[in-house]
Amino acid sequence: MKKYNFYAGPAILPREVIEEAARAVNDFNGKGLSILEISHRSEDFIQVMERAEAAVRKLLEAGEEYAVLFLSGGASTQFFTLAMNLLDKEERAAYIDTGSWSSKAIKEAAGLAQVKVVASSKDKNYNYIPKDWSLPPDAKYLHITSNNTIFGTRYKEFPEVKIPLVADMSSDIFSRPVPMSRFGLIYAGAQKNMGPAGTTLVVVRKKYLGKVSRHLPTMVNYQTHIEKGSMFNTPPVFPIYVSMLTMEWMLSQGGIAAMEKRNMKKAAKLYDEIDRNSLFIGTAEKEDRSIMNVCFLLNEQKLEETFMAKATEAGCVGIKGHRSVGGYRASIYNAMEMEGVDVLVEVMQDLEKNHG
Amino acid sequence: MKKYNFYAGPAILPREVIEEAARAVNDFNGKGLSILEISHRSEDFIQVMERAEAAVRKLLEAGEEYAVLFLSGGASTQFFTLAMNLLDKEERAAYIDTGSWSSKAIKEAAGLAQVKVVASSKDKNYNYIPKDWSLPPDAKYLHITSNNTIFGTRYKEFPEVKIPLVADMSSDIFSRPVPMSRFGLIYAGAQKNMGPAGTTLVVVRKKYLGKVSRHLPTMVNYQTHIEKGSMFNTPPVFPIYVSMLTMEWMLSQGGIAAMEKRNMKKAAKLYDEIDRNSLFIGTAEKEDRSIMNVCFLLNEQKLEETFMAKATEAGCVGIKGHRSVGGYRASIYNAMEMEGVDVLVEVMQDLEKNHG
Repeated sequence: MKKYNFYAGPAILPREVIEEAARAVNDFNGKGLSILEISHRSEDFIQVMERAEAAVRKLLEAGEEYAVLFLSGGASTQFFTLAMNLLDKEERAAYIDTGSWSSKAIKEAAGLAQVKVVASSKDKNYNYIPKDWSLPPDAKYLHITSNNTIFGTRYKEFPEVKIPLVADMSSDIFSRPVPMSRFGLIYAGAQKNMGPAGTTLVVVRKKYLGKVSRHLPTMVNYQTHIEKGSMFNTPPVFPIYVSMLTMEWMLSQGGIAAMEKRNMKKAAKLYDEIDRNSLFIGTAEKEDRSIMNVCFLLNEQKLEETFMAKATEAGCVGIKGHRSVGGYRASIYNAMEMEGVDVLVEVMQDLEKNHG
Repeated sequence: MKKYNFYAGPAILPREVIEEAARAVNDFNGKGLSILEISHRSEDFIQVMERAEAAVRKLLEAGEEYAVLFLSGGASTQFFTLAMNLLDKEERAAYIDTGSWSSKAIKEAAGLAQVKVVASSKDKNYNYIPKDWSLPPDAKYLHITSNNTIFGTRYKEFPEVKIPLVADMSSDIFSRPVPMSRFGLIYAGAQKNMGPAGTTLVVVRKKYLGKVSRHLPTMVNYQTHIEKGSMFNTPPVFPIYVSMLTMEWMLSQGGIAAMEKRNMKKAAKLYDEIDRNSLFIGTAEKEDRSIMNVCFLLNEQKLEETFMAKATEAGCVGIKGHRSVGGYRASIYNAMEMEGVDVLVEVMQDLEKNHG
């Protein structure tokens, strides 16, 4: 039976990518070896790295003033790494708190330097994006979480500020065009739109690096990885390879503009149903709704079991909401086809018909 | 044509493991989803983590006094991480320098605390393991590199000291039994005997943790990962899965005792040929020879091209030596069958017959 994968992450990947990846596990490039057992210094893998970097640059329109890195450790590792690379202990950065991941980013930076939280939506369980805030004059960067996986909100427009924007884009990178020139640093764990778990993309404007006086362990220093093209040590070969395939798939589908168009359509369809259907209610403020993670509740608790059973029966996987919001979360990343949304909407409509 | 994979790492994996991994990429556990796109919080993956940890404990005979962690970032990330977790700034550790990776471990620790290098084999381009050294009275641990991938040496016997041993076992973990109780911490990048690139095993005796007063970023603190069973954040799902398969394969083959027996046989065959064949010479001191990485030179430079051509023709891949030693390096990790060694030995014998 066909499954519709609504997991928040690790998340759905294009079927073509999965099949190509499986072939490479058996035999990569017809060389008689698995991609899992080749040297990262082999010609074949060096080419993978080059193609992966080229795809990122194309998708984000990132020029040579930016370095493109494939690192390890997830966005959580970047929380302290970026602060160590961009701030000395007595220096300050501004952060906006829009959810659990923002809070974690704030905590890690605050352990290493001065942090000013300029706004937070914690007062309403993070169901909106704060718009009213101002920067302290000494802030070296402004950190935001572009899309909040758990709470289903996103920055529809990115802040325009005079200091570099630093953004955790883990859950919406490549879902829509971004004004690249505003960003000093973008980072994203691969395991949503980019690929499988195991690598983290960092795109950093090179001129902001090399300015701190604090001690940086070699692996924590972005410059190490820039100098060695993300190959100072053995990189996560297979996660990078599958990310390359996924990014090239996006390009083959028309790039980020095409992804955004598709994503807007899927999100609109699902939100329209949530707003129309008397049994459901969306949790995020309408103007800040994510086009990646659609969070909603059932009005009647007694229907929860039935809804989950019907959704499962229809092939929907991973729609249970995060415990801090409850209810449901349908993650509709780039690789989700409209068909999946149609199936879920049908389940919601049937529920209303039979129990509304 | 069948390939014999002598890469130093990422390295050969058992064919059964590769085939199972390819199937899981297409469809994991018959659930209609790829292992690349399932949540790390799903039942199926939680089971993978449990099986992976159980396999490590069984292979190393590590009891509950040890924590078993699957982290990211390679051994290079452990170089600074272990020093930060085990030492305050004014505290001292002893290190033995047996090659490039030891040197890197020393450099990272020295940036964070006090380091005493108690012995080094740099004087002879690291072709032996120093045996004559003593520890400073205040050393909190002794760090060694159990097997030196680049130089083809290993500790045949592990030091017996009164302080905890800390060992980078990246290139010979699971190749032979180890006296676990001597070790305070063992770490190993997966990409040799354990699995593909992308995860790093850390086995640490819990009582040594939580003693430093320095600030530890959350992701750098081993206790974070212990408390969350290596799932504080999204772990490298697929590398851990393939590592689990590889470790279970070892167990199914008779465990570490069987691995060692096989490895000794393969190494003996290859070293015997190097010692017998008038065209070749081994680079490492005989008593310290690695049973994982067999390093050797051709006596006559003019035969280099012919040897490489003949080896390639026979299906041998990855035998070029590291630039800091030159010549050849045949890495014969657990998954290498005797057949591969036989083929290489035959090429060496043919070369002598035709050009000796």
